[in-house]
Amino acid sequence: MKAARLYEYDPEFRGPEFLKVEEVPDPEIQEPDDVIIRIGGAGLCRTDLHIIEGIWRGKVEVDLPYILGHENAGWVEEVGRGVRRFRRGDPVIVHPLITDGVCPACRRGNDMHCENGVFPGINRDGGFAQYLLVKERNLVRLPDGVEPREVAPHADAGLTAYHAAKKAVRVLEPGDHAVIIGMGGLGHIAFQVLRTLSPARIIVVDRSDLALSLAQELGAEYRVKGGDDAVREVLDLTGGRGAQAVLDFVGEGGSIEQGLAMTRNAGYYFVIGYGGTIRVPAIDMIFSEKNIVGNLVGTYTDLVELMTLAGEGRVRLATVHYRLDQVNQAIADLHGGRVKGRAVLVP
Amino acid sequence: MKAARLYEYDPEFRGPEFLKVEEVPDPEIQEPDDVIIRIGGAGLCRTDLHIIEGIWRGKVEVDLPYILGHENAGWVEEVGRGVRRFRRGDPVIVHPLITDGVCPACRRGNDMHCENGVFPGINRDGGFAQYLLVKERNLVRLPDGVEPREVAPHADAGLTAYHAAKKAVRVLEPGDHAVIIGMGGLGHIAFQVLRTLSPARIIVVDRSDLALSLAQELGAEYRVKGGDDAVREVLDLTGGRGAQAVLDFVGEGGSIEQGLAMTRNAGYYFVIGYGGTIRVPAIDMIFSEKNIVGNLVGTYTDLVELMTLAGEGRVRLATVHYRLDQVNQAIADLHGGRVKGRAVLVP
Amino acid sequence: MKAARLYEYDPEFRGPEFLKVEEVPDPEIQEPDDVIIRIGGAGLCRTDLHIIEGIWRGKVEVDLPYILGHENAGWVEEVGRGVRRFRRGDPVIVHPLITDGVCPACRRGNDMHCENGVFPGINRDGGFAQYLLVKERNLVRLPDGVEPREVAPHADAGLTAYHAAKKAVRVLEPGDHAVIIGMGGLGHIAFQVLRTLSPARIIVVDRSDLALSLAQELGAEYRVKGGDDAVREVLDLTGGRGAQAVLDFVGEGGSIEQGLAMTRNAGYYFVIGYGGTIRVPAIDMIFSEKNIVGNLVGTYTDLVELMTLAGEGRVRLATVHYRLDQVNQAIADLHGGRVKGRAVLVP
Amino acid sequence: MKAARLYEYDPEFRGPEFLKVEEVPDPEIQEPDDVIIRIGGAGLCRTDLHIIEGIWRGKVEVDLPYILGHENAGWVEEVGRGVRRFRRGDPVIVHPLITDGVCPACRRGNDMHCENGVFPGINRDGGFAQYLLVKERNLVRLPDGVEPREVAPHADAGLTAYHAAKKAVRVLEPGDHAVIIGMGGLGHIAFQVLRTLSPARIIVVDRSDLALSLAQELGAEYRVKGGDDAVREVLDLTGGRGAQAVLDFVGEGGSIEQGLAMTRNAGYYFVIGYGGTIRVPAIDMIFSEKNIVGNLVGTYTDLVELMTLAGEGRVRLATVHYRLDQVNQAIADLHGGRVKGRAVLVP
Repeated sequence: MKAARLYEYDPEFRGPEFLKVEEVPDPEIQEPDDVIIRIGGAGLCRTDLHIIEGIWRGKVEVDLPYILGHENAGWVEEVGRGVRRFRRGDPVIVHPLITDGVCPACRRGNDMHCENGVFPGINRDGGFAQYLLVKERNLVRLPDGVEPREVAPHADAGLTAYHAAKKAVRVLEPGDHAVIIGMGGLGHIAFQVLRTLSPARIIVVDRSDLALSLAQELGAEYRVKGGDDAVREVLDLTGGRGAQAVLDFVGEGGSIEQGLAMTRNAGYYFVIGYGGTIRVPAIDMIFSEKNIVGNLVGTYTDLVELMTLAGEGRVRLATVHYRLDQVNQAIADLHGGRVKGRAVLVP
Repeated sequence: MKAARLYEYDPEFRGPEFLKVEEVPDPEIQEPDDVIIRIGGAGLCRTDLHIIEGIWRGKVEVDLPYILGHENAGWVEEVGRGVRRFRRGDPVIVHPLITDGVCPACRRGNDMHCENGVFPGINRDGGFAQYLLVKERNLVRLPDGVEPREVAPHADAGLTAYHAAKKAVRVLEPGDHAVIIGMGGLGHIAFQVLRTLSPARIIVVDRSDLALSLAQELGAEYRVKGGDDAVREVLDLTGGRGAQAVLDFVGEGGSIEQGLAMTRNAGYYFVIGYGGTIRVPAIDMIFSEKNIVGNLVGTYTDLVELMTLAGEGRVRLATVHYRLDQVNQAIADLHGGRVKGRAVLVP
Repeated sequence: MKAARLYEYDPEFRGPEFLKVEEVPDPEIQEPDDVIIRIGGAGLCRTDLHIIEGIWRGKVEVDLPYILGHENAGWVEEVGRGVRRFRRGDPVIVHPLITDGVCPACRRGNDMHCENGVFPGINRDGGFAQYLLVKERNLVRLPDGVEPREVAPHADAGLTAYHAAKKAVRVLEPGDHAVIIGMGGLGHIAFQVLRTLSPARIIVVDRSDLALSLAQELGAEYRVKGGDDAVREVLDLTGGRGAQAVLDFVGEGGSIEQGLAMTRNAGYYFVIGYGGTIRVPAIDMIFSEKNIVGNLVGTYTDLVELMTLAGEGRVRLATVHYRLDQVNQAIADLHGGRVKGRAVLVP
Repeated sequence: MKAARLYEYDPEFRGPEFLKVEEVPDPEIQEPDDVIIRIGGAGLCRTDLHIIEGIWRGKVEVDLPYILGHENAGWVEEVGRGVRRFRRGDPVIVHPLITDGVCPACRRGNDMHCENGVFPGINRDGGFAQYLLVKERNLVRLPDGVEPREVAPHADAGLTAYHAAKKAVRVLEPGDHAVIIGMGGLGHIAFQVLRTLSPARIIVVDRSDLALSLAQELGAEYRVKGGDDAVREVLDLTGGRGAQAVLDFVGEGGSIEQGLAMTRNAGYYFVIGYGGTIRVPAIDMIFSEKNIVGNLVGTYTDLVELMTLAGEGRVRLATVHYRLDQVNQAIADLHGGRVKGRAVLVP
């Protein structure tokens, strides 16, 4: 099959060939619960840029060359003999983590903390290819009318946004405010999830006018230009109290300090974007009784629920498609800030 | 009546007379829900030292001279005509915050976030006196056999420990570990609360051998000497994973970094002690999906529950009694580290 | 002032004068937290019919004559000297229960279980009058643009629907189904609340074509004609499993058996309507692990939240207005099934 | 191997040979996740009597003859090649339900509602034998010092008690009361679980003096003789309000009516025992806002937690051992009420 493999890290991001598109052997069924997916779309994610740059080199063990791509959707091509819930032709999206199903976390439904998780596209061959080997446990059936290549980025970007937004939903009552800092790929999903699952008044904060105009198109009533005045404006909109939930999809460049300052007493600040450092005196956490909440991708059930919302048309994703052999162009475009929405590679 | 009043701040803590014990007019009933308490005991708290030093001067508005004392218990002396639930002679402990009962926080039962709260002993006359003016809403009836002067410090120190411990209880299942950093006045209450309300395996961490021996007396099975090896020892005790809940009653001198490092993935770090600063890269919060939880005193209902446990003999408090006219000696002793347990002033 | 008082019970509902409209003394402020409301609208409720018929005679103690009316909204006319949050002219809706604010239930925010609750219109003078005496604690300020007479029935009917719907929201995830049995005065509020607060797919069941057409106007996608086939149709719509939440606003005439049969395993059946009897073999509760949940009006905070949704235009109420001196006509119309929407008396 | 098989139903319970002890072929590994257990103990349960009597004949499909026994513990004898978490010799208890691990319920951790569950001992060969074929997913490792034959009944009886008790724990605060109706095999486990996991005051109700003396031995402070006065006595013990949680392990002969009457307003009645019928007017559910909660066995995680408590010595089980070839004697003893504690068959 055709696949795009990483042969060497490129710390300076020189390119132009980051991945090599070439013929490799097809994956094969080995275990009864194995499934081979014919890729319909594979999302290109900022994490892929970080992998290419070698930033993740010390964090995960993987031998080069290997196939990138961890946001995958397609159709079932072949199933192991123990697979009962899927058969050839079923349209599916692939949960990014292969879990063992028997560790304590998996048994509690908290599978993204699986003790033996494996990430295709991160620490073994992923989906920038025609076929991908995964397990029955990874697959979520797509609702009618949902095309794999339209939803592939939900496998990671959407799932992360959904997971964090759903935690926020649990603490949001009518009249409460929620702030979304960063209305990008994840933020615009979180906005739609909050709007569907909670009665909160949602305030979108972004430095980019383009992002704020996207917010407006999606129906965001409260929009605040990011920057020095953002905290004051959010306080004005919330009667001086701040928001019950702040979801920070930026996580650097002042967003952390501002996000915490926008959070009301006894409220919740959700960390999703990263790059910066949280710094807060213990005494401030006590007087305010605030909560700082980390967020890691999402569970299998989260992805099932997100696909349900996608099938109902309540969460939409902006995508731009590239052919698999245009992968290096897509990478360069993403790096150069020239991708509007999420880039998806189509074999 | 006799009362101990603060006439001027003493930033250098020179003393020897920090408060002046003198005759002042008795408080009088003014509103239908007013209650006058005859003080049975008033806890002396480290916060009182900070007030004397002037550290709180900018944070609360209060005119000198005024009576200190925010951990109060005693007997009802006189009630306003609207008071229905208490009458003269009832033994009570006083919730430290006078709340309005009608703001949104109060209406949800989250009264310690009252929009109009007033703190006797902090920003108006407190309980280092023979009598104290409060509201019916502040009073918790003491169970039979519980003496005011034995439980007065529960009004703040115990309440804070209970409030934080109870949040931890909600996330602790059989087999989970909870760490208590700092087995002092608050920590030893939290230990007893956790032991009564949860099945968790409790690990006590303290730098002081005295505190660890107190832990042993209270039945703590797992005890770890605070210091450089503490994190490693906690990890060893928890199968390398860390604890589901870490309650940090120190909040400075390395306890924050260590406490976060002792917290397992998807676990909870509770900030109760203060002095230091939380510093954690956003990316670490994401990979670990940890939660950092601020804690502020406790609600009226928290205090009711804590008194129930006290009445059942399941939470005990170590107290040392001083006469009210020994208040400056008590203050000097507390400042000098010569009080074992909690100091209580008895008029 | 003018008021409509009940002088004697009318078990046969003969009329035509059920209540006597007459001049009575104006209520007066007596306690510091008293408030007098100038009535803008007072909802007429089926419970009023039951009171007139004498059905409630044994359940509550009240001396005749007295003023009916427990769904009240209007403007603040006069306040006691202790009232801080409201002043003359403020538009308000009146929580139906006067609570003491200091019992354990009130302190937890669960005020409708107040140990000392009093119900104006049920066991003392209510709002079928020009003025009504209540407490500051009863009042919820109306959002801008919300007229008292348009929302008065929310004080009981809407509040009950909201309280039950909100419990259901906590167990409804994307893809789950909720059934509303009975799309009447309460049911159509519950529908709007569920739609705003949860992602569930809502199935409306009603025997009346008129009610089903109202459901359609409100945007209900799934509508099932009540009757023998209703259970089968709900099972068809839910993949044979039944619904995660069933809210029964009928509670008699087969709705209970059908409602339980529509509930999926591990699901929740909410009892709101009454008249019939729940009968279920214990073994069926075990194999199915279902939950049967009683529902009683709602808390003060519930009413605040409902008014927020009303102010945002997300929950609308159909009302029909009568003048206060038309009260007996309104009663006859309600009894005769001739009121479309909720009847509101306007002084 | 030796096994006890059911050849025909015995509706009159004539015996004396209910099961035939005979040689049958050993089970064999077929799938990668298969595990063969060497039985250390298999609990004999009242459900086994019902199976023999044919009561379950219509409810589950199974061909005779087959091996009974659904409360199994022992040691791993052989594992399929895909099994990673267990190896030969590991002491284990067997969760009673073989689940698929991939249905929505399993993925949420609610595995006992698995869409494809199979019950060894109920609808296929069980553990009244030397060996038993199960899946890796069924196995819970026993803590050090815990013998299989001492805990086998926890696989069903203990698990059911734990599951219900744990739901109760979530609604029990300090000062609340919990009632256990029926201090038998399940009830005495629930008592120990409540005592360990909650601060509630536990009231044990039983008609049998023997059971009440067991309650006393286990430290139950509040004991009430079952019968006509039981409700009144519970109300007396609870200040006239009733208990926040009532766990009914009898479910017939008046216990349901009494249990509901013992439940306080807004409280929870848990159905675990069965035989009788719940009958309650809808209006009573509304005025009281009570909850009626069904209970079905327990999850895998429940069993893990229960074994943790067993390993810590916090939950103890009274067992009586029979040799496997004494199975018919054991059955007759259980039927005749001559087994004190839970009977366990040891091969």
